[in-house]
Amino acid sequence: MINVKEGLIIIGGAEDKKGDKQILREVCEHIEKENQLLVIVTVATEKPIEVGNEYTDIFHSMGVKNVSVLDVENREDAMRTENIELIEKASLIFFTGGDQLRITSILGGTQLYSNMRRKYKEDCVFVGTSAGASVMSDVMIVKGMDDESPKKCTLKMAPGLGLIYGVIIDQHFAQRGRVGRLLVGVAENPEVLGIGIDEDTSIIVNKQNILRVIGSGAVYIIDGSNISDTNVSEQHQDNILSIFDVKMHVLKTGDKYDLTDRRPFV
Amino acid sequence: MINVKEGLIIIGGAEDKKGDKQILREVCEHIEKENQLLVIVTVATEKPIEVGNEYTDIFHSMGVKNVSVLDVENREDAMRTENIELIEKASLIFFTGGDQLRITSILGGTQLYSNMRRKYKEDCVFVGTSAGASVMSDVMIVKGMDDESPKKCTLKMAPGLGLIYGVIIDQHFAQRGRVGRLLVGVAENPEVLGIGIDEDTSIIVNKQNILRVIGSGAVYIIDGSNISDTNVSEQHQDNILSIFDVKMHVLKTGDKYDLTDRRPFV
Repeated sequence: MINVKEGLIIIGGAEDKKGDKQILREVCEHIEKENQLLVIVTVATEKPIEVGNEYTDIFHSMGVKNVSVLDVENREDAMRTENIELIEKASLIFFTGGDQLRITSILGGTQLYSNMRRKYKEDCVFVGTSAGASVMSDVMIVKGMDDESPKKCTLKMAPGLGLIYGVIIDQHFAQRGRVGRLLVGVAENPEVLGIGIDEDTSIIVNKQNILRVIGSGAVYIIDGSNISDTNVSEQHQDNILSIFDVKMHVLKTGDKYDLTDRRPFV
Repeated sequence: MINVKEGLIIIGGAEDKKGDKQILREVCEHIEKENQLLVIVTVATEKPIEVGNEYTDIFHSMGVKNVSVLDVENREDAMRTENIELIEKASLIFFTGGDQLRITSILGGTQLYSNMRRKYKEDCVFVGTSAGASVMSDVMIVKGMDDESPKKCTLKMAPGLGLIYGVIIDQHFAQRGRVGRLLVGVAENPEVLGIGIDEDTSIIVNKQNILRVIGSGAVYIIDGSNISDTNVSEQHQDNILSIFDVKMHVLKTGDKYDLTDRRPFV
């Protein structure tokens, strides 16, 4: 049985590709391996052939019969009929890592892009890892300092793909020391929930807005709704941010979180 | 006027030594430069002469007339009468960086150590940077993985000097991505408050248990008192920790925190 109620799989990068491949196996659970089409989107990376071949081999080896790579390196490619048609046939679309601004700057405003959003509503499953993870939300982090104190200048944001709303997703979270930059994002608008995902770790979001965690690392939920004071609007770019009363949850594999009620559960 | 009500200055390491030296200037505010003795304790480092000379030169250049280095490289040194006498004369004792376990394993259980604790109650000011910061609390972090998901095996703790109770202090906090390991420490006993201090950043604790922040980075308070669920006691060493409802504050220079009431203020 394929789980069509879970439409979004967001991976913190560096998912295991050689061991038990827990996360990629989970991805394969969301497609009928014999007859549905899995499309790998390599637009984020500057090594599309290498990355496309690597994932194609992995998914083939895991039993997925129909795997294609969407070959889009610039906006002209994004407008090609054959690419639009390929996406139309997909049952699962997998965004690789690279640079999230490549994804949005090349796909944004095209027919391909609006077809993708329609397909998401129609039960096509979307998966993204690393840059492909950040890009899933309506606002995404494009650049920020790693291993740094929270400062406004450490964070640059941009509009993302908009498959999930009201969250900012950061990846390679523990491994690159990114809590500072995600705190800045949340302080700037506590309406938005910060989600930090470690490497080889993933959240799977269902249509009821519940996420569950799988993988070998942790997922951090930064909830700013109770922030009692912050200087984020007053400070200069390179001043340190002060934020009082942030709520944080650390979730491990198997834990769940209700994005609507903002509550973790097991 | 010297501020004798602030007995403890805890620095997250890598304090500025060449620019405006904000933190070291603050240290000098806590001593009468003309006639009181500042003692540098290099026991944490394996380069005591180099480190001792560096700080001696800096404090001299900032106008402190009487600066001595406590020369303790092993337990035998710690028991020498001249070293005990030197500490007796000190008005400010400055612990350098290095390895916090060197500090406690060499000084612990000696007359020198118990005299230090008495001196702290008698208004001698204690300052510690890096390893010298961690060692100030009754329980200290001695080892943990940087840039890592929270796991029990990433954290080793040991008894510290015990000048401040009820907190665990971690240093080089943003720069080494240490939020994971401090979260583990807090989850293991939420009675204890986690304090993460960035490089070139310091907390100054007064006798009323209020801390204030100075420096160019941030200070992170991790308050586990509202933790609603954690698997910390059940999990194996290398499993990921799950922790729900942690409260976090990010403080910048000038912010204050009441350690008794567990409340930040400006």
